[in-house]
Amino acid sequence: MSDSIRVIQYGLGAIGRAAAKLVLERPHLQLVAAVDCNPDLVGCDLGQVLGLGKNLDILVAEKLENLFEEVEADIVIHCTGSHFINVQPELVEIAKAGLHCITSCEEALFPHYRNPDLAADLNNHCVSNSVSILGTGVNPGFVMDTLPAVLTTISQRVDAIRVLRVVNAATRREALQRKVGATMTDADFRKLVDEGRMGHVGLLESLVLLATSIGWDIENISETVEPVIAQGSVRTEYLNVLRGQVAGVRQIATADRNGKEALRLELQMYVGAENPRDEIELTGNPSIKLVLPGGTPGDIATPAILVNMIPAVVHAVPGLHTMATLPLPRLSA
Amino acid sequence: MSDSIRVIQYGLGAIGRAAAKLVLERPHLQLVAAVDCNPDLVGCDLGQVLGLGKNLDILVAEKLENLFEEVEADIVIHCTGSHFINVQPELVEIAKAGLHCITSCEEALFPHYRNPDLAADLNNHCVSNSVSILGTGVNPGFVMDTLPAVLTTISQRVDAIRVLRVVNAATRREALQRKVGATMTDADFRKLVDEGRMGHVGLLESLVLLATSIGWDIENISETVEPVIAQGSVRTEYLNVLRGQVAGVRQIATADRNGKEALRLELQMYVGAENPRDEIELTGNPSIKLVLPGGTPGDIATPAILVNMIPAVVHAVPGLHTMATLPLPRLSA
Repeated sequence: MSDSIRVIQYGLGAIGRAAAKLVLERPHLQLVAAVDCNPDLVGCDLGQVLGLGKNLDILVAEKLENLFEEVEADIVIHCTGSHFINVQPELVEIAKAGLHCITSCEEALFPHYRNPDLAADLNNHCVSNSVSILGTGVNPGFVMDTLPAVLTTISQRVDAIRVLRVVNAATRREALQRKVGATMTDADFRKLVDEGRMGHVGLLESLVLLATSIGWDIENISETVEPVIAQGSVRTEYLNVLRGQVAGVRQIATADRNGKEALRLELQMYVGAENPRDEIELTGNPSIKLVLPGGTPGDIATPAILVNMIPAVVHAVPGLHTMATLPLPRLSA
Repeated sequence: MSDSIRVIQYGLGAIGRAAAKLVLERPHLQLVAAVDCNPDLVGCDLGQVLGLGKNLDILVAEKLENLFEEVEADIVIHCTGSHFINVQPELVEIAKAGLHCITSCEEALFPHYRNPDLAADLNNHCVSNSVSILGTGVNPGFVMDTLPAVLTTISQRVDAIRVLRVVNAATRREALQRKVGATMTDADFRKLVDEGRMGHVGLLESLVLLATSIGWDIENISETVEPVIAQGSVRTEYLNVLRGQVAGVRQIATADRNGKEALRLELQMYVGAENPRDEIELTGNPSIKLVLPGGTPGDIATPAILVNMIPAVVHAVPGLHTMATLPLPRLSA
């Protein structure tokens, strides 16, 4: 075990628990601690929390700082929130503790976009403590940003990039079906949009990461969040959407380059979506289309990418990284 | 121009000429010289060789060493041959001159496989001269190795990887149609296979690069090269294949892991191939399929990747690199 990388799991929601389980399966990784502020979990054995039916002799700690005297670790997998402004103090604490970090925080994919000062502050803490931090996931983090960037490697010229992700929410967990607005009225949905409480977090971060990674200056960045209205009733394992109710969300981020739309990321997540898929289209020389039929299953793929990026982050130059500043991403089983 | 990267084009075949043209289009690159031993080209103005209809005031040099006193450069795009054993002295000369290099030599994608001693020697020259060398292209270099490696980033577990590339040779240049054996007899084709003169160079390098990049120990590496026999006559712009003649090649490289076939790269290149495409299938958790309908056009994409990798190679740690040791590949226009 002496050569293994020691991992702390911070946040034990669905993604955090799946990441912790995957760490346990990887021979080069060692799960040494877990943190979650949920009082129902604090003090419980992690093996029970993960539903393993056995103890791991790792008790869930309420706060990261409670671990510093007892546990030696190398990296934290951080899964506590979507908004960088909220989790930045946690990430700073991790850096100050001399620990590397991979976070599922969607806005941390490219935190310089919304919070340049907080991002710069975090980067400073990383550099002065010789650690690296990366925000990633499957979306944002892979399908709508990293993968299209990689596809441009074989382009002589790219005029426009269009990415379409269609998710049939009926095949996903109940929380996601509720999150996309299934069974809501159009009015309630739009009210949540106006309050900034509806829609996928991170689409603009994908857009900006993609543009930055290929050196594009973009302008007129914009985003729309619209309800998809059910044309007929749709029954899922968890709920029943009636005709005229909201089935889910259609979210589009665009940006111009040289006065013309050059980037368009469209995410459709609704119950009953047909032909779920991820599609990337490059217009240019050559024009290329890439399709992932069925789409990438986020509940499996996000824990995977969080864990697969561990060696790259541990060996990176200290600082706040993006998927575009690290070596070729790949399985690290 | 002072911040631009100065490029020498070494080798002016179809790919080399296309790479040189692309360098001319990129504002951050400056084409400063060209080399080709072909007596028909030596001394000619590169603009005429490239068919630009104007002079570039760059005369094609016969040998790289002829340039060293006159030209200052940063990197060489090297397109002279497919076999590492033949081009290694040229690559050493480039390294000794203190120049970085990107080569289209197929076996240089992973030269440690066939020629570990020559690869180690080249690496030493790179390190002692503080330069970096990379072998790449679209195949080998992207479709059957780099792209499948990137796709594994979202895998919790990969049991097997299958890549299929189907190219309709009828849509490619005449040299390629001849190269895959179109119009040959079965017997003549097999004779060339036995002599090691038929088939795509680099499929095993793709296999080994892919395995190495995801940390797989593989065994029973094998490769077959078979003719595809025309089931009816096929006419192309350049030739006419009769029923029963060879239409092209079907080449398969496989490897086992833990006693079972885990890697299978299949390349079909023949005139009249239907549904040309690149397909990657990962079996595991999740199982994922990726399709590039129509396939990647090699004649456009290979010059593109050679040129797009320039900034990554110039800024890399000195040494002999692979696509898996450099940062996320992407457009660098």
